[in-house]
Amino acid sequence: MAEEFVAGSTNGVPMDAAAAKSPNSISTVIPGWFSEISPMWPGEAHSLKVEKILFQGKSDYQDVMVFQASDDSPNDVAETFLSISSTYGKVLVLDGVIQLTERDECAYQEMITHLPLCSILNPKKVLVIGGGDGGVLREVARHTSIEQIDICEIDKMVVDVSKEFFPNVAIGYEDHRVNLHIGDGVAFLKAVPEGTYDAVIVDSSDPIGPAEELFKKPFFETVARALRPGGVVCTQAESIWLHMHIIEDIVANCRHIFKGSVNYAWTTVPTYPSGVIGFMLCSTEGPHVDFKHPVNPIDANDKSKRPLKFYNSEIHTAAFCLPSFAKRVIDSKA
Amino acid sequence: MAEEFVAGSTNGVPMDAAAAKSPNSISTVIPGWFSEISPMWPGEAHSLKVEKILFQGKSDYQDVMVFQASDDSPNDVAETFLSISSTYGKVLVLDGVIQLTERDECAYQEMITHLPLCSILNPKKVLVIGGGDGGVLREVARHTSIEQIDICEIDKMVVDVSKEFFPNVAIGYEDHRVNLHIGDGVAFLKAVPEGTYDAVIVDSSDPIGPAEELFKKPFFETVARALRPGGVVCTQAESIWLHMHIIEDIVANCRHIFKGSVNYAWTTVPTYPSGVIGFMLCSTEGPHVDFKHPVNPIDANDKSKRPLKFYNSEIHTAAFCLPSFAKRVIDSKA
Repeated sequence: MAEEFVAGSTNGVPMDAAAAKSPNSISTVIPGWFSEISPMWPGEAHSLKVEKILFQGKSDYQDVMVFQASDDSPNDVAETFLSISSTYGKVLVLDGVIQLTERDECAYQEMITHLPLCSILNPKKVLVIGGGDGGVLREVARHTSIEQIDICEIDKMVVDVSKEFFPNVAIGYEDHRVNLHIGDGVAFLKAVPEGTYDAVIVDSSDPIGPAEELFKKPFFETVARALRPGGVVCTQAESIWLHMHIIEDIVANCRHIFKGSVNYAWTTVPTYPSGVIGFMLCSTEGPHVDFKHPVNPIDANDKSKRPLKFYNSEIHTAAFCLPSFAKRVIDSKA
Repeated sequence: MAEEFVAGSTNGVPMDAAAAKSPNSISTVIPGWFSEISPMWPGEAHSLKVEKILFQGKSDYQDVMVFQASDDSPNDVAETFLSISSTYGKVLVLDGVIQLTERDECAYQEMITHLPLCSILNPKKVLVIGGGDGGVLREVARHTSIEQIDICEIDKMVVDVSKEFFPNVAIGYEDHRVNLHIGDGVAFLKAVPEGTYDAVIVDSSDPIGPAEELFKKPFFETVARALRPGGVVCTQAESIWLHMHIIEDIVANCRHIFKGSVNYAWTTVPTYPSGVIGFMLCSTEGPHVDFKHPVNPIDANDKSKRPLKFYNSEIHTAAFCLPSFAKRVIDSKA
C-alpha cells in the first residue's frame, strides 16, 4: 500500500524544490514513510513510517489523507525504552500537513478547548470554527454547563473521514448538544446575532490554504461581534519557534479589537512542526477574564469515562509562561 | 559536499532496517538532507536540509559530525511567515543524533543550568558531567557567586569540535573559573571528596552509547555523595512523550537515593525527538530546596552582553507543571 505515494527523492527530484512548487502535495522521503515538507517550515521535515494508507481523497478545498503509522519496534533494545503508547496510531493529513495523530491529539484538543472554557464561569453557548474532526467537540462536551455547541466546518470530507477512521475523536459529534453546519466560518459568524456566544474556538489549519482568512483582522472583528460582553475566543496561533512574525501580527490585531484580555499560550504537540503550538486567547469588553487563573476547573472532579490525558489546572497556568525571546516580542505589542 | 553522506533510501536499503542494524550510523532520507533515525524513536525521523558538511570524525567513543543547515527560503510565500532566525545554523551530531543547533540550543542550555542554580542561594562550586560543547559552562558562568566550575567530559573531540565550529557555545570555556577534565565522569565523581559540590549538572547524551552509565542507580549514588547537604543535581532526563519507562525508572531510583526534593521538569527543544526534553532535579538531605520557586533569580538584573534568550523565573516554575499522563506516572512513584 505504502508504495502508492512514493515520490520525490527516489526519482531524482529534490524534495525541497518539489515542495516549493507544490506545497500541497503528499510527499515522501523514504519509500514507505510519510514526510511533512512545507514552505512554512523550509529546510526541515518530520517523517513517520507508514504501515498502511487508509484513505486518500481530494475535496473541494484540500487533499485529505489518513494513514496508519507503523508500530514496529526495530529491535530488542528499543523495547526497553519505549513508552506504553509506542505508535502514533492513525494520522490525519490535510494538504500534506499532519493535523492529528491518535497518540498526541489529546494535547491540542484539550488545551485549545479548556484554556478558554475553564477561564469563564458557566459557559452555555459555544461555537467551534473548523475542528471538523470532532476532537474539540469531544472536549467541549465535558463541560456540563453547556447547552448549545455549534460547529461550522468548511470541508464535509474532514467530518466524514474522521467519523470513519477516528471514532475516539469524532465521538464529539455524538453529544446531543452539537449542531453541525457545513460552510464558511466567516459567513456563519456574520449571520449570527450580535453577542450570541460565551466562547468561540477557532480550530484552523495553517494560514496557507482554506484557513487563510481566519488569521486576518476582519475575521477577528466578526468573532468579537458574535461574543457576549466578557466572552472569550481561542484560536490556533502557530509556533513561537517558527512563526513569531505571524504571531506578532495576530497579537497586534487582537489588542486592537479585543478590549478585555489578550494573552498568548502554548503547548507541546510532538507531530506539529517544531513540536509546539500556540493559542491566542482574548476576551471582549465586559466582565474581566483572567485567562491565567482558571475559575471553572474541570479536572478536580473528573469522573468521566475518558479522563483528561493532558490538561489540568496547573498546566493551564503554565501555558501562559513564555520563553524570553517570545515574551519580548509579545509584550512589545502591549 | 552533502552527497558524501547520502545513503539508505536511494540505494534500496530500507532505512528503518538499516537504522535497526546500525543505530549509530549517520543516515539520510533525502539526498542533501540529514535525518535522525534511531531505535529510541522507531518509526519517526526529523530531517534538516544540509548546506554543507563541516566536519566528520570518529572519536574513541562515537561518531562526530557538524553540518551547516540550509537557510534557503523556498519561495516568496515563506518569507512572510518566517521568524527572524529562519535557519537552524550549525548542527552538532553525535552517533547520528542531533545534540545542538545554533537556533534552539538556548532552551536546553539555559534550562538545564538555571533550573538547579536558581534554586539554591550562593552556589560556589559546580560540576558539569558531559556538556563538552561548553554551552552549560557559558550559562553557569552567568552566576557571579560561583568560584569554581569543574567539567568532566569523556570525549575530547566534542570539546575541540565545539571550539572550532560553535564559538558562541564554546565561549563557556573562556571563563577563568572553568577547569576542564577529559575522562570518565563516574571515575571523576568517585575521586572527589564527599560533599564537594553545591550543584552537579549532568548534560549527557541518550542512554544508548557512552552515556549509558549516567542513567543508572550507582551513578546517582555517586552524585549524591559528591554533593554537600542540600546540594542539587540536574540531569538530562529524556522525553515524556517517548520515554516514560526510562523516566519512571529514573524517578524511582532518585526517590530512593535523594532524601531532599525530587522533581521532574521539562521544556521545548524543537530539534530533539518529540520536541521536548526533561530534567530530573534532586537535592540531598539538608537545607530544604523548593525547586519550583527559584530563590536565586538571575533574569531580573540580567545586564549581560548576552541576555538570556529562553530562561526566566516564570518559565522556571512552569517547567514543573506536567501533562496529566506524565503526572500520574511520576506522582505514583512518590
